[in-house]
Amino acid sequence: MEFRRVSEAVIRRMPKYYRQLTVLRDQGMERISSGRLAQMMRLNASQVRQDFNCFGGFGQQGYGYNVNTLLAEIKNILAITHPYNAIIVGAGNIGTALANFDGFEQEGFIIKALFDVKEELVGTEIDGKPVYHIDELERYVQENNITIGVIAARRSVAQEIADRMVASGIKGIWNFAPMDVTATVPVENIHMTDSLICLMYKMHHNVISEN
Amino acid sequence: MEFRRVSEAVIRRMPKYYRQLTVLRDQGMERISSGRLAQMMRLNASQVRQDFNCFGGFGQQGYGYNVNTLLAEIKNILAITHPYNAIIVGAGNIGTALANFDGFEQEGFIIKALFDVKEELVGTEIDGKPVYHIDELERYVQENNITIGVIAARRSVAQEIADRMVASGIKGIWNFAPMDVTATVPVENIHMTDSLICLMYKMHHNVISEN
Repeated sequence: MEFRRVSEAVIRRMPKYYRQLTVLRDQGMERISSGRLAQMMRLNASQVRQDFNCFGGFGQQGYGYNVNTLLAEIKNILAITHPYNAIIVGAGNIGTALANFDGFEQEGFIIKALFDVKEELVGTEIDGKPVYHIDELERYVQENNITIGVIAARRSVAQEIADRMVASGIKGIWNFAPMDVTATVPVENIHMTDSLICLMYKMHHNVISEN
Repeated sequence: MEFRRVSEAVIRRMPKYYRQLTVLRDQGMERISSGRLAQMMRLNASQVRQDFNCFGGFGQQGYGYNVNTLLAEIKNILAITHPYNAIIVGAGNIGTALANFDGFEQEGFIIKALFDVKEELVGTEIDGKPVYHIDELERYVQENNITIGVIAARRSVAQEIADRMVASGIKGIWNFAPMDVTATVPVENIHMTDSLICLMYKMHHNVISEN
């Protein structure tokens, strides 16, 4: 299926629907109206219907959505139904935190190994995942069907790592270094400072609102 | 000034304008049109003008924006002109990564101390910041003019920590635990998994786009 005209804003809302619907399913809810879902997510109902229409729409007018069906459709659209093998470059605090976090596997994100240049880290394991020297990157990616590369390294080397990842065949980059990297494959740059600045804005202007 | 009707979507774009304008200022650019700025940020020009109009607008029609003035106005709106003292609860990998990261201070975010329950961490320092026992939290917050609390702890204790932070006088919460917390003060819940899911969507649907 092709969704070429789906905007970035819609794409970014899809994981939030996914999260909210997972909560509703776990609560045993069977049906939900666009109005009620919108209210829970602090959107308006027409926005929700418009978002879903980007993908063909999932419900019948006035009848609401079946929670399980909707969740399955969204999982399918989000392509989180099959596993992605990943590696992390940078075995410092952020890399270690990511390697230790056990909440990713349900999304099909499987961290296989880490890479670093520090001799004292190479050869160790983090949460059972081996740490290799960065010189092993290209060979490892090719031999182990790695599709996602996580950058958890310093700003000064982030773009170079991104380039090496793409050259070795990686299909998507998740970047935690505090600078944007660019690539010929999809990239998600994490901007933690943006979130911090939003918090400061809300504190200053006394906005108690959604997340 | 009051900006009560500013939507969450606009608030979330403001840090991105701030980042982009900082880059332009550092490149020595003096003026920029809404069209050019929009293009750089993959928005459309009317969106940019609408966003700025939420705050009274900053430019003259057809003349573009003065980069330095615009940046100063946005900094002012975002309230990142004065310092916020912060503490981190949880001195594990995420807490340590945040304490070590030196990119926050330019946004006025100053980490003063960390808190944990683990006896082997209490009494140590992370990047020069002391780690105290969680029992010290309330006293420390009150005595040290702490306004932001960072939650870098396990899911099971996140809400309890948020409640204690609010009770001790904290004015805003930045939550890295993998569950949303709620509070009577502004909260920013970091959802790293949302970003991961967006990456998977883009990989599956071959979207090479903005960040």
